[in-house]
Amino acid sequence: MPDPLPKHRLCLHTATTKPWSLEECCRHYSAAGIGQVTVWRNLLENVPLSRARSLLADHGLTAAALCRGGFFASTQASKRQAALADNRRALEQAAAIGAPTLVLVCGADPAQSLEDSRSQIRDGIAAILSEAESLGVVLAIEPLHPMYAGDRSAVVTLAQANDMAEFFASPWAGVALDLYHLWWDPALEQEIERCGKGGFLRSFHVSDWKIPTADLLNDRGLMGEGCIPLRRLRERVEASGFRGPVEVEIFSTSYWKLDQEVWVRRIIDAYSRHC
Amino acid sequence: MPDPLPKHRLCLHTATTKPWSLEECCRHYSAAGIGQVTVWRNLLENVPLSRARSLLADHGLTAAALCRGGFFASTQASKRQAALADNRRALEQAAAIGAPTLVLVCGADPAQSLEDSRSQIRDGIAAILSEAESLGVVLAIEPLHPMYAGDRSAVVTLAQANDMAEFFASPWAGVALDLYHLWWDPALEQEIERCGKGGFLRSFHVSDWKIPTADLLNDRGLMGEGCIPLRRLRERVEASGFRGPVEVEIFSTSYWKLDQEVWVRRIIDAYSRHC
Repeated sequence: MPDPLPKHRLCLHTATTKPWSLEECCRHYSAAGIGQVTVWRNLLENVPLSRARSLLADHGLTAAALCRGGFFASTQASKRQAALADNRRALEQAAAIGAPTLVLVCGADPAQSLEDSRSQIRDGIAAILSEAESLGVVLAIEPLHPMYAGDRSAVVTLAQANDMAEFFASPWAGVALDLYHLWWDPALEQEIERCGKGGFLRSFHVSDWKIPTADLLNDRGLMGEGCIPLRRLRERVEASGFRGPVEVEIFSTSYWKLDQEVWVRRIIDAYSRHC
Repeated sequence: MPDPLPKHRLCLHTATTKPWSLEECCRHYSAAGIGQVTVWRNLLENVPLSRARSLLADHGLTAAALCRGGFFASTQASKRQAALADNRRALEQAAAIGAPTLVLVCGADPAQSLEDSRSQIRDGIAAILSEAESLGVVLAIEPLHPMYAGDRSAVVTLAQANDMAEFFASPWAGVALDLYHLWWDPALEQEIERCGKGGFLRSFHVSDWKIPTADLLNDRGLMGEGCIPLRRLRERVEASGFRGPVEVEIFSTSYWKLDQEVWVRRIIDAYSRHC
C-alpha cells in the first residue's frame, strides 16, 4: 500500500459527481474528508448565492474555483455582448461563494479564423478584467484539447494561454492547466515552467486518458487508468512553484452511474496512488 | 460558378470510397477524370500485386502513395520486430504498384512515455531506410491529431515530423501533411514553410472538420463543410514549393452509405470550390 497523501490538497469538481446537488456534494465531500470544491454553475441555478456560501462554510469547504465563464468568440457582436454579461454574472457568483478563481473556456466560432477568435477572447478578457479585480476573482484561461478548436476554444496549448497571460500582465489574468487537454504537447513541460515563472498558474486539473476511450468528452478516466504521466507532470507543476489544490475533474457517463459515495472513495484512493 | 480547377491535381484515397474494390476504384476514378490514387493496403489483400499494377495502368491511373506502414512503437521487442517485417512488406507492395511513397502512421504505446515511443519510431524508420532507398519508395511520416497520441501516433505536430525528417536528412524520409490532423496548430504555417524548405513534404491530404462532428474518426467532412481554412493552407503548402497531388482522404460512415459514384462527383465539385 502506498503512503496516504494529505487529502487537503485534493479538490473535487462538482461535475465529477454530476448526479449530486450542491447540498449533496457539500455533505458527502465533507464526510469523505475533502476540504476544497470547484463549483459548476449549473448547481447555482436553483440555490441562492447566500445559501450556497453557507452550505460550503457549514461543511468546512473552501471554494477553489467557479466553472465556468468564457465563450467570448463569435462573429456576432450581440453574442459577444451577451458573453460579457454572462461573465460578469459569473464573476459575481464566484465572489459571492468565496471562489478566488473563475475558469474560462474561451470559445471559438467556426465561421471565422482561430486568430480572429483569439483576438475576440483577448478583447473579452480585457473588457471584464477591472471587474475581476474589483471583485477579487482571477480569470483563469484554460486551454482545451485541440479536438475542441472548432467551436469551444481557440486556445489549445499552454503556450497560447501563457502568451495571453503575459499580454495582460495582471494578477487577475491567470491560467488553468488541465492535463487531460494538454498531456500530449511536446512543449508542455517547458510551458509549465514558464507558467510558474510568470506566476500565472491558478488551477490544476487531473483525470486520465483511457485507451480505448469510448467518448472523448464523457469517458475520461480515473487517475491511473490511462496514459497521462500524472505523477511526473504534477511534480513539474509543483517544481514551478504551484501550491494550490489538485482538482479532480472527471466527466464520465459510466462513473456517474455508480453510487457516488463509492465513486468518491475510488477517487480518493486513486489520488493517493497516482497523483 | 467558380472556374473549374484542373482535376489532374486531385487524388483520391481508396479509403474515401471504402465500399469499392480496387477494380471498382480504378474504373470509377478513371471515368470521373481522376488521374491519381492513393491505395490502402486492405485492397491489396486479395489482389496479386501484378494485377493491381495493371489495373492502375489500364485505367490511366498513377499511384500517389500506399497507405500505410508504421506502428513502430511498442514496449514488446517482438511487436517492434513484427512491425519492421510488416513495413518491409509494405515497401515491396508500394514498389510493386509504382507508388513513390509509403505513408507512416507511426504508432504509440500507452504503456510507455511519448518520448520512448518516438525513440522507437526513429529506430524503426532507421531500420528500414536502406530498403526504402533500394526500392525507391519514400517513407512519409504523418503526424496525427493529438487525440491519437495515446495509442496511434506519438507524432502529433508537423514540427515533430519535421524534426524527424531533419534527423534522417535523407531523401527517403519525408513528411505527409493531413490538414484534418493539424489545422488547429498555431505553428502550422511556419512549419509548412520549414517542411518545404527542407524538401520533406511528400503527401498532402485534405478533408474538413465538421461542427458538430458525430465521430471524430469516421465523420470527417467534405471540403467546405467545416472550419479548416483549406484554400489558405493549400496556398501556403504550394508557396512552400510543393507541386504534388491534393489527396482527398475522408473517412465517413455517412458518405460511405451514398451511391459512391454520386459521392465522387460531390468530391470533385467540392475540390473545385474549396481547395
